[in-house]
This record gives sequence, C-alpha cells and structure tokens, in this order.
Amino acid sequence: MEQAVITAAILVIGDEILVGRTKDKNIGYIAEYLTNIGIDLREVRIVPDVKERIIEALDALRKTYTYLFTTGGIGPTHDDITADCVAHAFNVPIDENEQALLMLRERYAEPDLNEGRRRMARIPHGATLINNPISKAPGFRIENVIVMAGVPHIMQVMLDDVAPTLRMGQRIHVATIDCGAITEGLYTTALAALAQQHPDVGIGSYPSFHQGGFRSQIVVRGRDEGKVLAAKLAVEEMLSIISG
Amino acid sequence: MEQAVITAAILVIGDEILVGRTKDKNIGYIAEYLTNIGIDLREVRIVPDVKERIIEALDALRKTYTYLFTTGGIGPTHDDITADCVAHAFNVPIDENEQALLMLRERYAEPDLNEGRRRMARIPHGATLINNPISKAPGFRIENVIVMAGVPHIMQVMLDDVAPTLRMGQRIHVATIDCGAITEGLYTTALAALAQQHPDVGIGSYPSFHQGGFRSQIVVRGRDEGKVLAAKLAVEEMLSIISG
Repeated sequence: MEQAVITAAILVIGDEILVGRTKDKNIGYIAEYLTNIGIDLREVRIVPDVKERIIEALDALRKTYTYLFTTGGIGPTHDDITADCVAHAFNVPIDENEQALLMLRERYAEPDLNEGRRRMARIPHGATLINNPISKAPGFRIENVIVMAGVPHIMQVMLDDVAPTLRMGQRIHVATIDCGAITEGLYTTALAALAQQHPDVGIGSYPSFHQGGFRSQIVVRGRDEGKVLAAKLAVEEMLSIISG
Repeated sequence: MEQAVITAAILVIGDEILVGRTKDKNIGYIAEYLTNIGIDLREVRIVPDVKERIIEALDALRKTYTYLFTTGGIGPTHDDITADCVAHAFNVPIDENEQALLMLRERYAEPDLNEGRRRMARIPHGATLINNPISKAPGFRIENVIVMAGVPHIMQVMLDDVAPTLRMGQRIHVATIDCGAITEGLYTTALAALAQQHPDVGIGSYPSFHQGGFRSQIVVRGRDEGKVLAAKLAVEEMLSIISG
C-alpha cells in the first residue's frame, strides 16, 4: 500500500532575520529533522513582525500543507505577536492558559512573574502546549500549526517534544555521490538522460566552491530504497565512463 | 523631502535547501547587504525545483516588492530551471545569449563548451547580464527581478555587480543596546511603553542563549538618526532604572 506523503512548511517570524541582524539557524535544522522522519518540507517563508503579514502567511501555508511549523515571536515583549496572530487566523479567543502559567511558575517565583512574563502564558483556545525544559515558557500546537520559539536551543527541544505526535511519512533514502575531479559541466547531458531513465527518484547536482576550485556532488533521493540504489549505481557508472 | 521606501524579497530555489542537505548562507548575507544600502527586505521564500511553484512565487513576489532577488537553479544540469521559469513568468522567449556565450568562452575552450555548459548561456529576452568573475556563467536581471547563482561566493560577486544599478533608499540607522544581566522578562512593560513613545523607530528585543544562560539585546532601528539616538538613550535610561 502506498503511504500518504506528509508535507510541511516553515514560517519564520521576525524583523531581526530580515534585517540580517540574526542569521537564521532554524530552517536548516528543521529541514534536516523533517527529512529524517519522512516529512517533505515543501516551502519556507520569512515575514516581519507585522500582524497582517503573519496572518496572511499562516493562512496560506496551513491550508496548503499537512503541517506548518512557525519559529519566533513568542517571547515576553511587545514585538512578540505570534500567538495573537495564530488565534486570529483560527478565529479563536486567546488568554492566559492555566497550565502554561504553572509551567512559568516552575521558573519564576510569584513576585517575578510580572505582566510581561505572564504574556508568555497567553495561548489560543484549543491549543495543546509544547514543553520547553530550558526556559519553561511553552510553545503550542493548534490543529496542524506548531508554534515554536525562535532561539535555536529552545526550538530544538520543542521540536523533540512535538515530533512523536506527528504523522510520519515513509523515510526518504538519500545517496550522495562525490564527483571528485569531474565538474558539473562534464556530465550534464548524461545526467539529464539518466534522470529520465529513473523517473521515481529525484536526482540533483550540487556544485560548491572550495579553496578556489569547484567540486560537485550528485544526490539521489527517493522513498524506494532499491530504486535509489539502482540510480546511484547508474550515476557511478556514468562518472567512471566520463573519467575514462 | 521624504524618500520613497525601496522594498525587496528573496526567492531561494532548490530542493537541497528544503531537504536540509545544504544550509542556506545567502539569505542572511543578502539581508544584511540590503539593509546597509537602505533597501527593506520584506519577505523571503524558499521553494523546490518545481516549475509551477517557482513561477507562482516569482509572480507573487515581483509584483509586490520593488526588487526580487533569486538564488539558485542557474547551473548547467537538468534541475537548473530558474531561467526558464523567469522567461515563463515574464512571457518572453529564452535562448542562447551571444554575450553570455562570450563570457563562457573566457573559461571554456570551444571543445569544452558542451551542451550542458551552453545551457548556462540561455537567458530570457530583454534581460541584462550580471557578471560572474569567478566561474563566468552570468546571472541576469529582467525588470525588477535579479537572478543569481546559489553558490555563496558567486552570489556575492553577482550582488556586488548588480548593486550599483539599484535604487537605494535612505540608510537605516541601527543602535544595539546590550542588556547585560537584565533579562527580557524584567523590562517588557517598560519597553512596550517606550516603544509607544517612540513611534517612528522600530524597537525589538532579542534574547539569546549562551552557555546555559540567557542574555538579551534591544535593537532600535529607523531612518531618522536623531530619533534612533533619542530612543537608544531612553532604553539605556530605562535599563539603568531597572538595574537600580
């Protein structure tokens, strides 16, 4: 039986990424994580801390993919508006969540649990909380939208917490073939033909630039391990013919 | 006279980013670059090597922002389809560009300029070329869309080549205040009030996690240097009051 393909998008929320002040480290991490559990990441968007823009992106992505993962905008300050935008998108109320307050009290004694910090307990109705063992303030999941922190360490523990609740797809098998001295330009025609002969796998060619020279890798990906292996062997044969 | 605000988006094209195999290094670089020349980066999207998805994103972003910068998908192999998608989006023909072929001939002797490499000279009609001193294969610009390579070193020299042709905005002034021992939760209410008192600047609070502890920075941004300075002084006064 063919397993359903599970898809996902990431929405990164935050001016600090768009002005280049903070270099995002979450996209690559989540991408690799999802690939490893058989979920196909199909799109990423980065938007500023602007309510209308966040809501527009939330709606576009949550309606298109199985899951939407958001990062950023759930801290205590006035520019943290993700939870409110998610409530707006789902048209549900948002207020202090008792369980989230309990979590914050594990970290903050009552006098320190000020107005700003209590903001981190504001959760849209109907959401389930995502644990944050590092700084306690939780993320949350509502329907297919998973709302996580922007600080990479915290995002990572939240992803570990929510992952077991996700529908996982069939794992994608990946074979990487290093092309050594053979640069991309030498195998383009042969590789295009090979890709046509192996329609059930994805074949990509990835050049990189190191110490003044190019090298490239060919990557074969697919859900059927046998077909990935067959394409990998065909690529290796092609390269050995080219290198004479 | 108020200067017009110049906006931009980035479209990153490539399966390798979405599967987490390649960690993008271009978004942060372009973001910082544009900020420094007064162009507001407003949105980023990452899409796979799928024609319909690339064209859809090209159209959404080029029609919304002053400029759209794309990275990836202009190499010699079958999965490099960006130029064709751009031609499709603008509804113009695409074929071998004489000037681009001359550029490639600087690198490749005629027998080495095979079918695959010649693909890199396919440029949509009406586009102007962007120089690539590293590997010669050019990027191009058509109307407000700037098409660049995905390999970071090459993307960077292409950006340097195209930047002087862009309309630049008024530079954004940025002041960063390190909050030392004062964590976010201690200044949320005061900072929200301060942000309301300084409506012409953007004020963000950015926590990070280092060696088991949090620290945070407050960043003030705006096009009026005096207003940024005034808000910075107000933030510093607020922090000194909190720290007693």
